[in-house]
Amino acid sequence: MIPNWLLKRSSLTPSRTALSFCGKQWTFQELKQEADLIARKLRMNGLEEGDRIALLGPSNPDMVFVIHGCLLAGLEIVMLNSRLSTKEILWQLGDANASLLIVEDELLRQTKIQDVPMITFSSLQSSEQRDFTISKMWNGSRTITIMYTSGTTGFPKGVRQTAGNHTSSALSSVLNLGLTEEDSWLCTMPLFHISGFSILVRSVIYGMEVKLYEKFDTKTIVDEIRNGTATRMSVVATSLRRILEEFEETETVAHPTFRTMLAGGGPVPDDFLRRAESRKLPVLQTYGMTETSSQTATLSSEDALRKSGSAGKPLFFNQIKIRDTEQPGELGEVLIAGPHVTPGYIGHAVDRDPLEDGWLPTGDIGYFDDEGYLFIVDRRSDLIISGGENIYPAEVENALLSHPLVKEAGVCGQSHPVWGSVPVAFIVLSGDVAEEELDMHCGELLARYKIPKAYYFVDQLPRNASNKLLRRELKEWASLK
Amino acid sequence: MIPNWLLKRSSLTPSRTALSFCGKQWTFQELKQEADLIARKLRMNGLEEGDRIALLGPSNPDMVFVIHGCLLAGLEIVMLNSRLSTKEILWQLGDANASLLIVEDELLRQTKIQDVPMITFSSLQSSEQRDFTISKMWNGSRTITIMYTSGTTGFPKGVRQTAGNHTSSALSSVLNLGLTEEDSWLCTMPLFHISGFSILVRSVIYGMEVKLYEKFDTKTIVDEIRNGTATRMSVVATSLRRILEEFEETETVAHPTFRTMLAGGGPVPDDFLRRAESRKLPVLQTYGMTETSSQTATLSSEDALRKSGSAGKPLFFNQIKIRDTEQPGELGEVLIAGPHVTPGYIGHAVDRDPLEDGWLPTGDIGYFDDEGYLFIVDRRSDLIISGGENIYPAEVENALLSHPLVKEAGVCGQSHPVWGSVPVAFIVLSGDVAEEELDMHCGELLARYKIPKAYYFVDQLPRNASNKLLRRELKEWASLK
Repeated sequence: MIPNWLLKRSSLTPSRTALSFCGKQWTFQELKQEADLIARKLRMNGLEEGDRIALLGPSNPDMVFVIHGCLLAGLEIVMLNSRLSTKEILWQLGDANASLLIVEDELLRQTKIQDVPMITFSSLQSSEQRDFTISKMWNGSRTITIMYTSGTTGFPKGVRQTAGNHTSSALSSVLNLGLTEEDSWLCTMPLFHISGFSILVRSVIYGMEVKLYEKFDTKTIVDEIRNGTATRMSVVATSLRRILEEFEETETVAHPTFRTMLAGGGPVPDDFLRRAESRKLPVLQTYGMTETSSQTATLSSEDALRKSGSAGKPLFFNQIKIRDTEQPGELGEVLIAGPHVTPGYIGHAVDRDPLEDGWLPTGDIGYFDDEGYLFIVDRRSDLIISGGENIYPAEVENALLSHPLVKEAGVCGQSHPVWGSVPVAFIVLSGDVAEEELDMHCGELLARYKIPKAYYFVDQLPRNASNKLLRRELKEWASLK
Repeated sequence: MIPNWLLKRSSLTPSRTALSFCGKQWTFQELKQEADLIARKLRMNGLEEGDRIALLGPSNPDMVFVIHGCLLAGLEIVMLNSRLSTKEILWQLGDANASLLIVEDELLRQTKIQDVPMITFSSLQSSEQRDFTISKMWNGSRTITIMYTSGTTGFPKGVRQTAGNHTSSALSSVLNLGLTEEDSWLCTMPLFHISGFSILVRSVIYGMEVKLYEKFDTKTIVDEIRNGTATRMSVVATSLRRILEEFEETETVAHPTFRTMLAGGGPVPDDFLRRAESRKLPVLQTYGMTETSSQTATLSSEDALRKSGSAGKPLFFNQIKIRDTEQPGELGEVLIAGPHVTPGYIGHAVDRDPLEDGWLPTGDIGYFDDEGYLFIVDRRSDLIISGGENIYPAEVENALLSHPLVKEAGVCGQSHPVWGSVPVAFIVLSGDVAEEELDMHCGELLARYKIPKAYYFVDQLPRNASNKLLRRELKEWASLK
């Protein structure tokens, strides 16, 4: 059994700051009051313990209140990515079979979602309340969140993240990073991603302030780091680059109380790490994913520079092995086990076991060096990581192939100075189509960041004898463009 | 599953200091090597995974190596209190049915234990080794330690403390106290007590140095605190008093990096807390016991002064309630639940469930104030806490009654300026016996600290109509002496 995070935390340290946003602050006691109000309004809207809702909102305090309100009410939350296209959202809503969509008013206007049971943030706010008894303890296997992530098939799967998963993730992290009462975590990652959501979880488990930002504004963020008003931050390579550039332009360095820049969501160039060092930014590379409720391995601060480029060692409660290898240095698929690993999927993939013999196959390729440090050499061969967002080529290909004049499509990543990588498409047409038309077509089906940044029209795609698309060759083609 | 603590820790941070003693230091890598050697020697001595051994040793590095060696070898350790009489030790050995007694050479000479299967530290050191594969993961329900504690019957019961108990205790503690790489914990508590053993557990789970002392030398300890060479310490009221006196005599204060003085094992006088404050000693009162693998509730640093006298709030994963009460302020028996609570006993008490409806009844009397802070008003009515050691009157009474000329005996605590409380006996004799003879008689049966410090010969003991000893009245008698 695991204590109801916010209930326990607000009883332990009610007057500590839990959340700050645009100069406003909420203590844990206030956060609990806000969440409690939401929970009772959710109950009034017919939602009962164990029900599943979907949530579409921005990274702001209202969203935090709704998230904690849902947890107090005992609901499972399908965290919808607000960058997705309306079609993608509708597909996930259908697959998740959520009782209700809770959607922020502005995002509803933008996405024009209709014909699903829903309630807006503002309607929820003006709802009546129904009293109920909040569970003090949670079963560790209780599903807290569901986040969709795609695989090689191009069909997103809803990944369950339980109370036990999230809790052990936060505990493993604290044993690596430590904790003081002065800690506060800058959150510029979207809350619908595990990178952002896990900061909310750490906050209530640790009794730590979250400094929430809806948008990533480089100058403001750098001010926080420079002035010592925050001590931790999670970044992807793209945001780290912006932060570095701002520090370099202003010729300043991080405040000595700033303790950890947790860099994940894909590879961080070595050059960034060196530049960060000279700006006194303690960058720790980390390796994690939706299926592991955030971090699986992270560098220790004492190794940050000596083992630059490594994702560190598997955190205290976690295990990693490299498939079919025995010696350090041997490359293979990264396999993960531990209390932070998802127990499974929902929806169409509900019967699929994410594990093989108790281990989560990641598709990523890596090795351990002779001191036991993990190096990730290549993400699963086809994955494109663009500004920290994962793009699965098969999903983009499916979208392209649904156009009547697209005969074949092959999508891969092309390196990009800002986003690390962007998707590009090689296309075999069966008639005349303009690039703009493909853009519009994809725009209706896909999140903006998934739309190919270039279309290369070719006579045929590289395939092997059994007609399988040769993705490696495709990548070579892209690198030559 | 829980990772093998030392194996995991030595892989994560091999070169951090794990242990220091008399100016010598061992890294986690070195600690693991020492423990590994012991484990292989234990295997050579016929011990297999799951076997139970008893351990009798002082608080020194050899003892730490043997403890971790036993854990690597997969053994259950009965932690014997070296202050017990030989008879008491033999009783526990019999009750625990341990395969082997591992005993430090000097303690063997002192206790003159014989006729039990045993090996001394020195014989173990010179043993041959047998290779085996160390389990990387432990089942959470694996028994790590067994510590004997007495109840109202006067018969000590062997309390199981599992890997899950110890681990969750360390995790709950870190969420309260925090953790930095600079932390080191002064250990002057005996390792056979949960207060000392839990420091070893925190060390391997956190990657934190233990500064071990075999004896409590006030000047040396105060030097560590004053010079900032240690950041944490566990104390009982008696040792806190000595520390305060030394600080006061030398007119010095604690170093600002000294962060926590965890004060448990019985009540701490308010006066001590005020004096500690003026010496810049951050004292946090805590409440725990053998059955809860150390801390259950502890004050937060922000509440240390405001809530002086309170044992704080139940730590993150722990629950406390007061039997049959609904309102703050109502007194009742303290009941405890959580992953840190023992699953049960061994030996003669193996079939006894320590829990009632999932809650551990402590016999202690307390209440919550209206802000949820726990106050312990009275230890279980008959318990005598003397210098942090628990003394159960029934056990002392049994020893006295085994003398042929003692007809009736009633034992209770009498307040004492150094030890807080000491046991005294009210005795009805059936013939002439000198106090010295009773002292010798008790000395053969009981640990020295349990021997009554005074004998009061009376005509009859205070009893109620059904002839039950009125312990409250006995205490009143003692207070008038």
